[in-house]
Amino acid sequence: MRAIARSAYDRGALFVDPIFFDGAVKRTRLERADPETLGFVPSWYGQRVLAVGKEHGARISVQPNPEPGVLDGVDPTLAGRDGLPFVREILPVIDDRTTNWTVIAHPTRRWAEVAHPDLPPDEAFARLEADIVHVCRLDEPDPNAAWERRGDELEAAAERLNERRFDALHFEGPGTDLTIGLFPTSHWAGARATTVDGISHFANLPTEEVWTAPDPRRADGVVRSTKPLDVEGALVRGLTVRFEGGRAVEIDAETNAEALRGRAAVDEGAARLGEVALVDREGRIGRLDTVFLTTLLDENAASHIALGSAYANSVAEEDRPLVNRSDIHIDFMIGGDDVAVTGITREGGRVQVLRDGAWQI
Amino acid sequence: MRAIARSAYDRGALFVDPIFFDGAVKRTRLERADPETLGFVPSWYGQRVLAVGKEHGARISVQPNPEPGVLDGVDPTLAGRDGLPFVREILPVIDDRTTNWTVIAHPTRRWAEVAHPDLPPDEAFARLEADIVHVCRLDEPDPNAAWERRGDELEAAAERLNERRFDALHFEGPGTDLTIGLFPTSHWAGARATTVDGISHFANLPTEEVWTAPDPRRADGVVRSTKPLDVEGALVRGLTVRFEGGRAVEIDAETNAEALRGRAAVDEGAARLGEVALVDREGRIGRLDTVFLTTLLDENAASHIALGSAYANSVAEEDRPLVNRSDIHIDFMIGGDDVAVTGITREGGRVQVLRDGAWQI
Repeated sequence: MRAIARSAYDRGALFVDPIFFDGAVKRTRLERADPETLGFVPSWYGQRVLAVGKEHGARISVQPNPEPGVLDGVDPTLAGRDGLPFVREILPVIDDRTTNWTVIAHPTRRWAEVAHPDLPPDEAFARLEADIVHVCRLDEPDPNAAWERRGDELEAAAERLNERRFDALHFEGPGTDLTIGLFPTSHWAGARATTVDGISHFANLPTEEVWTAPDPRRADGVVRSTKPLDVEGALVRGLTVRFEGGRAVEIDAETNAEALRGRAAVDEGAARLGEVALVDREGRIGRLDTVFLTTLLDENAASHIALGSAYANSVAEEDRPLVNRSDIHIDFMIGGDDVAVTGITREGGRVQVLRDGAWQI
Repeated sequence: MRAIARSAYDRGALFVDPIFFDGAVKRTRLERADPETLGFVPSWYGQRVLAVGKEHGARISVQPNPEPGVLDGVDPTLAGRDGLPFVREILPVIDDRTTNWTVIAHPTRRWAEVAHPDLPPDEAFARLEADIVHVCRLDEPDPNAAWERRGDELEAAAERLNERRFDALHFEGPGTDLTIGLFPTSHWAGARATTVDGISHFANLPTEEVWTAPDPRRADGVVRSTKPLDVEGALVRGLTVRFEGGRAVEIDAETNAEALRGRAAVDEGAARLGEVALVDREGRIGRLDTVFLTTLLDENAASHIALGSAYANSVAEEDRPLVNRSDIHIDFMIGGDDVAVTGITREGGRVQVLRDGAWQI
């Protein structure tokens, strides 16, 4: 936090506000506060985000926060009611493209113990730190240049998908047979975003995905998650979701299914899809074969979908009223080498998109 | 912070917002930001305080913050421009009596090294912790009862001062010969405050003072501080201030005079008095003969005055438009066993108030 503040002030920041969100205090709230009050969000949490948008400021989110596992053992129904530190005002600010923002990872000892449970604590921490250096390409002679190159690759893949204008994607693999409808104007994007002021930024670092907004009315079939998911600190393993007419009608899991069910029930859009993203095996994260239990890293290891709000900029004006809206946005991983992704054309034809984790288009 | 959150939720808190203000980042700002921007305060800092007032919430401030010495060596002119974490919105919220609030102390290793510089770090920390336990009366069998008793004593002293209705106070001692005018309705208070909802609270713990709002147009003479003063992290030693017609016209010091001069120049009220407070030698802090370099403790070791804003509730309705207004409130210590305090009656008579640190009335 202090290093970021130094860099920001050296680059002319007006003010750096180091916001510390404490997972342990969140756990205390879930354990001791009146359950009926858990949806309360103080007014200044949203005002802060909106004010940064208005000022065209920069936003840097350091993950994981809360650290994975910090809510383990808490009643998952309660955990589902408190989405902080996420606040709904973040989504319109992203859509407005007023802020250059990024989500980055920083190693902590607690996270290291969860990500590398078989190693002694010091080794686990050193290993996690080395993982992050590697997946963030900080071990390259010129990390900035390395990211610009990878950004070019991802944007080229997105462009090839955009040329095909698929009507739907079909995911097939062990426990998975799911078709997700796309809008005629669903636009695939990757890596870099540009603000209204023309500032290019990587919204996530690392990033290995290309994504778009699906049609929230069209998802049918069953999907099995290929990696565990951390829902506000509660670990969901062995997740299976069945969709009908775009809606998640059954959510089951080996652990903490209630945490995701709780979040998926907060509003109408929470049970529908707001994002579909494809990840190839050329990225650095998937190759580590480590479950980091942190969405920023795990979602970039595998293709994934998200329950909840879409980024409205993913579609053209005419489809924008139809994209999914919700107070939540929860990604979960459904891709892997054994999950085939097929594009369905508007004429009903089938085109191989990903096989064994490799692009076929 | 986590212990406070547990207690607050157990007592029915709607939401506990742990706000962490980092002195090191403040130092970075002073060293690297454009000096012209140092007066900027993000809108949500004030909105947060006002919202807690509107909700009739509780506020707990844990001192020292920033830790003493954290800004040592920073250009004091710059330090004077950035008053954070203090925000002006705190003062009307206090005046409205909507929040039950308290300022408490918590030992830190850095503070311990400054407060007990002659001890090795571990001993310094243990000593500071013991100091705080003692001055907060946590070593009493029933600390709550001990504070209620001390509160009764302080409020009785305030009541005796209120009965006299002095026109002015005269401070005399080495380097000090200062007369401070009082309003006809200046009301002395001590220890406890009560919110509009009838909640009794100690606004400071520990507290050993009785205080009121003086007439900001009537202070004349010279005063020498009897303890060093920490101004937003810059240590001011050997401070001498000369007043004319209520205004501080000369501010000198052995170290960092500029820090206080900078703060005293932020607005018209910043060079005038908003508080005068008397401390007897029966309190526990003065007896330790330790300079804690933290206003919460040091101001309760000695009689003091404050440049800047008054608590408007210290006077009756008719004098309220006349009390001092400012964006700052900086206490500095002017009392001690060798400083005599004399009350001047409306008829011009002189009444001994404090001699050798003991009440004479």
